[in-house]
Amino acid sequence: MTDPRLTPLAAALPDVVPFVGPETQERRRGRAFRARLGANENVFGPSPRVLEAIRKAAPDVWMYGDPEAHELRQAIAAHHGVDPKHVRVGEGIDGLLGLLVRLTVGPGDWVVTSEGGYPTFDFHVEGFGGRIERVPYADDRVDARGLIDRADWTGAKLVYIANPDNPMGGMHGAEAIRQMIEALPADALLVLDEAYAEFAPAEELPEIAPADSRVIRLRTFSKAYGLAGARVGYAIGPAPLIAAFDRVRNHFGLGRLSQVAAVAALGDGDHLTHVVTQVAAARARIAAIAHDAGLVPLPSSTNFVAIDCGGDGALARRVMQELAARDVFVRMPGVAPLDRCIRISAGSEADLDALAQALPAALEAARAAN
Amino acid sequence: MTDPRLTPLAAALPDVVPFVGPETQERRRGRAFRARLGANENVFGPSPRVLEAIRKAAPDVWMYGDPEAHELRQAIAAHHGVDPKHVRVGEGIDGLLGLLVRLTVGPGDWVVTSEGGYPTFDFHVEGFGGRIERVPYADDRVDARGLIDRADWTGAKLVYIANPDNPMGGMHGAEAIRQMIEALPADALLVLDEAYAEFAPAEELPEIAPADSRVIRLRTFSKAYGLAGARVGYAIGPAPLIAAFDRVRNHFGLGRLSQVAAVAALGDGDHLTHVVTQVAAARARIAAIAHDAGLVPLPSSTNFVAIDCGGDGALARRVMQELAARDVFVRMPGVAPLDRCIRISAGSEADLDALAQALPAALEAARAAN
Repeated sequence: MTDPRLTPLAAALPDVVPFVGPETQERRRGRAFRARLGANENVFGPSPRVLEAIRKAAPDVWMYGDPEAHELRQAIAAHHGVDPKHVRVGEGIDGLLGLLVRLTVGPGDWVVTSEGGYPTFDFHVEGFGGRIERVPYADDRVDARGLIDRADWTGAKLVYIANPDNPMGGMHGAEAIRQMIEALPADALLVLDEAYAEFAPAEELPEIAPADSRVIRLRTFSKAYGLAGARVGYAIGPAPLIAAFDRVRNHFGLGRLSQVAAVAALGDGDHLTHVVTQVAAARARIAAIAHDAGLVPLPSSTNFVAIDCGGDGALARRVMQELAARDVFVRMPGVAPLDRCIRISAGSEADLDALAQALPAALEAARAAN
Repeated sequence: MTDPRLTPLAAALPDVVPFVGPETQERRRGRAFRARLGANENVFGPSPRVLEAIRKAAPDVWMYGDPEAHELRQAIAAHHGVDPKHVRVGEGIDGLLGLLVRLTVGPGDWVVTSEGGYPTFDFHVEGFGGRIERVPYADDRVDARGLIDRADWTGAKLVYIANPDNPMGGMHGAEAIRQMIEALPADALLVLDEAYAEFAPAEELPEIAPADSRVIRLRTFSKAYGLAGARVGYAIGPAPLIAAFDRVRNHFGLGRLSQVAAVAALGDGDHLTHVVTQVAAARARIAAIAHDAGLVPLPSSTNFVAIDCGGDGALARRVMQELAARDVFVRMPGVAPLDRCIRISAGSEADLDALAQALPAALEAARAAN
């Protein structure tokens, strides 16, 4: 039953959400997961300085957060060496994507993204009545040239690319992204989602040129900084576009403790280095576990590894389910041919012990049932 | 300069925000306020159990918050004795209002609210292209009958009322709201913003009838529960409308610590009683301070008191500015005749000492300059 007061657009939207949370799965199972390796969270956690900052600021939680997030915005601008007028802070990349789509995509407007790419972008575009052109991956990587071509054909307002990529883990180097920007049709905006940037080699990331009106970049504190539960993301882009977010923002949306936590996180570069090192080691171990099970891990510039299960989507889904039955939570891409893979987040040693123990049996059970 | 990729709707929106935060004012002044009495925050703060819960959960902040906010939703439902299907949790009442407007108000659709009422509601309606019919207050109270009449004339989708009211502080009793609901045109939805409900006499609040398809009620942890900086609000309403929020939500928008804090807050009824008592005492003292200065305080069922400065909007604005010059932050209503008042939040004893000290001189200076 639909509420009769919904707008025609809202009434036509499906009752689905991009992700079912691990907590929901745990409630359905009646049992907690042993290893939480499905949401690309950072098990190595935030800096101790962040925890200290949260604890210290907790008694101030009766005050609204600064609606301009002034201190955090300044800190991000300084971190990247850009003017604060190019920086917008928001409620995670998801929240910023929602506002960006609202600002730029009206009913019938086209956007271009990858088939099997980040579903929350699509969720927002559909939510504002936009039309989505999806370009298949090429050799398990985003087809950068294909995205540009389709943007040309459709007259797209937005071209979305996650680089490094989710869910496959690969990336295009700085030069490829530069070429993409140069080839972008006039009036299209490249939405460069760099949620996993801190895990990639710095020299592979395109230079930040904030005044370039063709690009908006999105970063987050949810991954390398270990603050997924605080919901802080930011955008770097051309000043007029950045300013326009004020027109549609949730005014006090960024909580006080979240702002404090993010400022503290930026201040501890050593911890970031520590996390990136730990994640690299975990990626290597996931790859080894895959090899040991006779499977092929894909190269990754992120905090997860996609593993080719050697069959079709049904087999990979079965492997994922058999892992869940063994209390290991992982996810998988949603469309073929990417869905021959499962996607495993970097975990602690204990998490990966659980994975190493569960994977061979899960694989065997999945193959037997297929 | 406007970004050329904005939708026509976004391009036409003004570059304004509903509120300038006190932090912004402090940065402009180069000096902190001594008493922060402008944002109707709860200086008495959250329960010690909340602070303990935040500190304990801080190390888990690397995990996304449960996107269904299951535990919190269950706790709210139990608190009000309703089924969880009638409860939606969100990023403050502001965030929920934004989603509600998005779900129900398309370009050209009408809503009805009060002239001088909560500006963030108007911000959202304008942001989605809706048209706003504003009904003047009658004798410093929301004109409930007038709202219904205008809803009839305009065919409004939404009728907004804050009860208890912000910025004037008064309220309509349960029977008046019941009559309003009965008189509501078919297909209109009453948006009953009860941000200040916990400060009002319980017997004056209309009964919660969650299955009633004519009403959605909004509550918050930002006021009586002392969690403005955590950004948690909730809606209670008809199940199909509540379910529709999933179609447009910021998926992981409610942070992990915020959820934990709100659950803990609901669990400490004694602290809530303590806060309500403290607030009542502070209201009485604000009224006494006003009387001592020869001014008239308005009756309040909230955590603030509107004080009639005895002149026009220019005089009240001057009083507000003179208070700020004396390091006391207050706000005031935006339109005549309400803007003859300033609005002062319940403060600590030290806050109100500062107010008592500053008000006579501020008033004198304001009158001299007028």
